[in-house]
Amino acid sequence: TALKLGMIPADGIGKEVLPAAQRVLEALGSAIPKTTFVPLQAGWEEFNRNGKALPDETVRVLKEECDAAMFGSVSSPSHKVEGYSSPIVALRKHLDLYANVRPVSSVPIPGQPGPTCDMVIVRENTECLYIKKEEIKTNADGSKIALATRQITSHASSRIGKMAFEIALRRGQEREAARNSGKDVWWKGEPKVTIVHKSNVLSITDGLFRESVRAIREGTDKYNGVKMEEQLVDSMVYRMFREPEIFDVAVAPNLYGDIISDGAAALVGSLGLVPSINAGDDFVMGEPVHGSAPDIEGKNIANPIASIRSAALLLSSLGYTDSAAKINAAVDAVLVEGQYLTPDLGGKASTTDVTEAILKRL
Amino acid sequence: TALKLGMIPADGIGKEVLPAAQRVLEALGSAIPKTTFVPLQAGWEEFNRNGKALPDETVRVLKEECDAAMFGSVSSPSHKVEGYSSPIVALRKHLDLYANVRPVSSVPIPGQPGPTCDMVIVRENTECLYIKKEEIKTNADGSKIALATRQITSHASSRIGKMAFEIALRRGQEREAARNSGKDVWWKGEPKVTIVHKSNVLSITDGLFRESVRAIREGTDKYNGVKMEEQLVDSMVYRMFREPEIFDVAVAPNLYGDIISDGAAALVGSLGLVPSINAGDDFVMGEPVHGSAPDIEGKNIANPIASIRSAALLLSSLGYTDSAAKINAAVDAVLVEGQYLTPDLGGKASTTDVTEAILKRL
Ligand SMILES: CC(C)[C@H](C(=O)O)[C@@H](O)C(=O)O
Ligand SMILES: CC(C)[C@H](C(=O)O)[C@@H](O)C(=O)O
Repeated sequence: TALKLGMIPADGIGKEVLPAAQRVLEALGSAIPKTTFVPLQAGWEEFNRNGKALPDETVRVLKEECDAAMFGSVSSPSHKVEGYSSPIVALRKHLDLYANVRPVSSVPIPGQPGPTCDMVIVRENTECLYIKKEEIKTNADGSKIALATRQITSHASSRIGKMAFEIALRRGQEREAARNSGKDVWWKGEPKVTIVHKSNVLSITDGLFRESVRAIREGTDKYNGVKMEEQLVDSMVYRMFREPEIFDVAVAPNLYGDIISDGAAALVGSLGLVPSINAGDDFVMGEPVHGSAPDIEGKNIANPIASIRSAALLLSSLGYTDSAAKINAAVDAVLVEGQYLTPDLGGKASTTDVTEAILKRL
Repeated sequence: TALKLGMIPADGIGKEVLPAAQRVLEALGSAIPKTTFVPLQAGWEEFNRNGKALPDETVRVLKEECDAAMFGSVSSPSHKVEGYSSPIVALRKHLDLYANVRPVSSVPIPGQPGPTCDMVIVRENTECLYIKKEEIKTNADGSKIALATRQITSHASSRIGKMAFEIALRRGQEREAARNSGKDVWWKGEPKVTIVHKSNVLSITDGLFRESVRAIREGTDKYNGVKMEEQLVDSMVYRMFREPEIFDVAVAPNLYGDIISDGAAALVGSLGLVPSINAGDDFVMGEPVHGSAPDIEGKNIANPIASIRSAALLLSSLGYTDSAAKINAAVDAVLVEGQYLTPDLGGKASTTDVTEAILKRL
């Protein structure tokens, strides 16, 4: 078998970090199926060139020809631009990539007691305020009123809830296996899912999210070994910063998930380290959590690790867990060694330096 | 003249910290006008007693008899309860307290280079998702769809923007005065307002918020000395944790403001330290940022400082700036000394201990 990966660098540093991820994938050689990389267009720059942020051809190729994809990062205009709409939001919808899975872990520095943050944020990826139903009216006095619709469905909430419990279960099993093979595993208790919402204000929409996720656990014995807790989103941000070690898997509606994953990224040193996959039932797209960072674009100093780890996540979700583990081990080795770090981590290394250091340790 | 203050302890630790604030206000004696405290009911407990979370009588007394008020904290049911609606959200609307002003500052420990966080969050308090327009429908297949409306108006965005620029201007003047009197002032540059939004996704609603706030600065020369910047809300949470020292005044729509102020609270050690006022054009209500903390209710270990500082903020907004400064100095002295700290700050002192330590230093 062979693998066809759509590569969508999009804007800014996306164009620098995605090629780094590609080099790492290429270096795996015969450990994974022969992989073809298909360059595809999308983004703000593409919009300015050809008038479409997400060309139909990109969607068509992804759907008809590719097994999976990697996405870089998008720039956005800060004001409303006629005809422009975020291509990443659109892609998630077009491909029904309903889950944005974002593992956030502290770097495993030896001699340290263990990671203080090792959580996975499971973000709903298709609805909430991201359905982009907005309108604006001008009143008689010239003042304006704008309305947006926030949509929460039992369907989307249940499937993201299921994904969260599945991930928690798998993490529990992996920890168990590691423990049995004599490894020191830092998380002691049962796996845990924390439902993030704001049902004290949004009792109907967030109430539905909350109930749908709870029903997943309550509808089966399968997740009996997984604890379930809740946090209001404001309190979640507070507690993540005060005691990140209490979280295992967090599941959240789209916007809260967006916010708390940036928050979690701050806890582990840099957004430049945090990978994600946008996952659906039959397609998956890796994507670093960071943005297009126009301020450092073109300088070859963007941290490629978020993208490289996203490639590992992608492989893992396609079933190539050994190759994924190999990539992650190489990344961790480079981080722990500390010789090749990009400026976001206080280092002086370039994107290329870090990529090559990782390639060497593969 | 005399002052009549509505006191609404509401639920949980609100009933412990509000009396502490009252004791401090009473101790000011003739430094402020003779003050009468009017106990008023509201909250989840009140709902369970009398079927209304916000009794009409409470609103009437506040409107007709009181000059200002202090609010404690509310508990909320995590599920939808028929007839229940958050009384604090309702009060903000009934009294048109359109701004929630939340100063978040590190404790000034001597010998330290200076605060790493000294910002004011100016949160819009009347709209966004807090208008509570929600509905739910059951589809033919039994699945459910819930919708909430998020409202942003130019009116509300402009007035909150104006409030933010006024606060930034005043902070700039205060720093200037302090500098001129030989004090070491940590913030070096011009005052700054950071507009927090997510206009890359919500281009119409957050676009309107953003433009309305920008127009405040652009419509006059008055704020020429105040810098204006923007942050997407996800990025704001990230940067607050990475470099809190770059923020002066942040202005945000309701929900983002809620989230980032809890985040900022984590930066300064405890939610138990962070005060706020809900301010309108002719009424103001002090309120600690923390919640009702049912887990520590009735143990006399809640931190009273957020409430005491809220009382100081209230006085300051009523024009009694000297008394406000006196309270804040007493609080800072107790914190810097470090002998009387509640458990949220790693200490063993009780609510009463801390209150008495502050009273002694008044
Ligand atoms: C670029 C933006 C639309 C996007 C989002 O909000 O989802 C980004 O912040 C992310 O987290 O992937
Ligand atoms: C209790 C809740 C409704 C409230 C809010 O979200 O405004 C609280 O979190 C706050 O910050 O005052």
